[in-house]
Amino acid sequence: MTSGEPTAVCVDWGTSSFRAYLTQADGAIVERIESPRGVLTVGKGEHEEVLARLIGGWLARSGPLPVVMAGMVGARQGWVEAPYAKCPAGLPEIAAAIMTVNTRAMGAIGLAPGVCAFDREGAPDVMRGEETQILGALAAMGRADGVFVLPGTHSKWARVESGRIMSFATYMTGEVFATLKDHSILGRLMDAASQDGAGFAEGVRAASRLERPGDVLHAIFMTRTLGLFDRLRPDQLSDYLSGLLIGAELVSGARGAQGAVVVGSAALTARYCAAGAILGLALEPAPDDCAPLGLLALLAHWRRA
Amino acid sequence: MTSGEPTAVCVDWGTSSFRAYLTQADGAIVERIESPRGVLTVGKGEHEEVLARLIGGWLARSGPLPVVMAGMVGARQGWVEAPYAKCPAGLPEIAAAIMTVNTRAMGAIGLAPGVCAFDREGAPDVMRGEETQILGALAAMGRADGVFVLPGTHSKWARVESGRIMSFATYMTGEVFATLKDHSILGRLMDAASQDGAGFAEGVRAASRLERPGDVLHAIFMTRTLGLFDRLRPDQLSDYLSGLLIGAELVSGARGAQGAVVVGSAALTARYCAAGAILGLALEPAPDDCAPLGLLALLAHWRRA
Repeated sequence: MTSGEPTAVCVDWGTSSFRAYLTQADGAIVERIESPRGVLTVGKGEHEEVLARLIGGWLARSGPLPVVMAGMVGARQGWVEAPYAKCPAGLPEIAAAIMTVNTRAMGAIGLAPGVCAFDREGAPDVMRGEETQILGALAAMGRADGVFVLPGTHSKWARVESGRIMSFATYMTGEVFATLKDHSILGRLMDAASQDGAGFAEGVRAASRLERPGDVLHAIFMTRTLGLFDRLRPDQLSDYLSGLLIGAELVSGARGAQGAVVVGSAALTARYCAAGAILGLALEPAPDDCAPLGLLALLAHWRRA
Repeated sequence: MTSGEPTAVCVDWGTSSFRAYLTQADGAIVERIESPRGVLTVGKGEHEEVLARLIGGWLARSGPLPVVMAGMVGARQGWVEAPYAKCPAGLPEIAAAIMTVNTRAMGAIGLAPGVCAFDREGAPDVMRGEETQILGALAAMGRADGVFVLPGTHSKWARVESGRIMSFATYMTGEVFATLKDHSILGRLMDAASQDGAGFAEGVRAASRLERPGDVLHAIFMTRTLGLFDRLRPDQLSDYLSGLLIGAELVSGARGAQGAVVVGSAALTARYCAAGAILGLALEPAPDDCAPLGLLALLAHWRRA
């Protein structure tokens, strides 16, 4: 955190969390706010009030500043629907699709769109917020090409060429893990996870032995049988399942390519890099706080237009 | 149903359901009872009373009859734990592991064990009840070899040679489907399933295009995006997810082999055969009511010993 002159407010407003950054022109973060007021907790028509309450202090203190937002706040169930920019999509394409939301107290706010992609069969895929983190990672790392993975509830794997997201795929790894742990037979034998990492490594290795697309439906059952036969301790079972699912995601997402960039929280990034090491896949962590950098890049493009 | 002289009571007592069959020596079913009193609903020490209440009428009418049981009733959390018979396991090995449970009103009851298997890596797998259905299918079909699939919450794929289960694998297809439908974002856009079959076929075809073991973690997300983009109707989405998961299981379980025998309820057997047809995998339905035939075969072996 620095104390220079702020020039913008960048808002990463997702399903379950709200993050705002008071930033300088060079991307340095002056102050930040994190709140549990994710889009899921905000009713239709209440977004302006919630946002004003959260960032109003900054605006009162610094005078009017441009505000730009990304994430699920632009989904149909969010504040205003910002239609998806279609792949290939880089800074110009995404900035061109920014929606302007007029507010009483905060002026005209920019709302970045999500991005959609269609695979060879024409099946759609979507992201909202991750495209902004990818733009930020590109800016922070001085890169224009690469494979980027954004781990989480719905992990995204994106291929970037010349600064544009060419294609991407969502893996429901985090949500499948949580759902099976909390609502299936697999959670029954589990104790709170130990920190020894052995269960996680065992799960990743099991993933590396899978051969066919449906094998994961079989392998997850080992979370139960390895517990039943005392091969893993109850405090290793949730890590085993996590390693198995993350390992399967890595094998599929990376498609053997080395050097994918991981853009995520420190804890999750470390987990993915550890799994990659077991699988012989080198992964490179991105710097922290890519979202505000991406939002600033979008803001600059938008205002220039 | 016939009205001949009954010679035994066969009980298939699973996690969520109880089925009993009053049978003749040739396997013909004289009467049957189905009850929701699965093992999960019965507390420790209550099994004898619950069983006596359910089949007591038959015993009162027909006089003392041998009673033989299989299923989760022999699990650790059931009536008495019947340790697993280890693969390769056929009629002699499974019958040799039958536990005798002494009761006041029903005499000495036979409790069949489950079967366990270990894969090349030494990872264990287990079944309880399905081994008895396989023995019944072998008897009913006059077979001693083949691949047998028992679809359900936890589908089992077993390879049988010379009447013995050589190896098997569990696929959590049914539970993964139910858990994702009821507890993940995938259920949000779903309406009650239509009967047109188009969503199911689309899901099976999507499964046939999967390449890598983790691809299924991506493909299930299409249940959401195909709905978001109006490619599938809300009443087709649960069938799409079902087709995708069953298709992935079939590709993995069958490993390209033709002619696997499906042992299951009529509805689920039809679903698996339909998926097989789309994938170019011929599946053969087993006759109904394999469990009592398997229990009678076990009973004959047990009493002879």
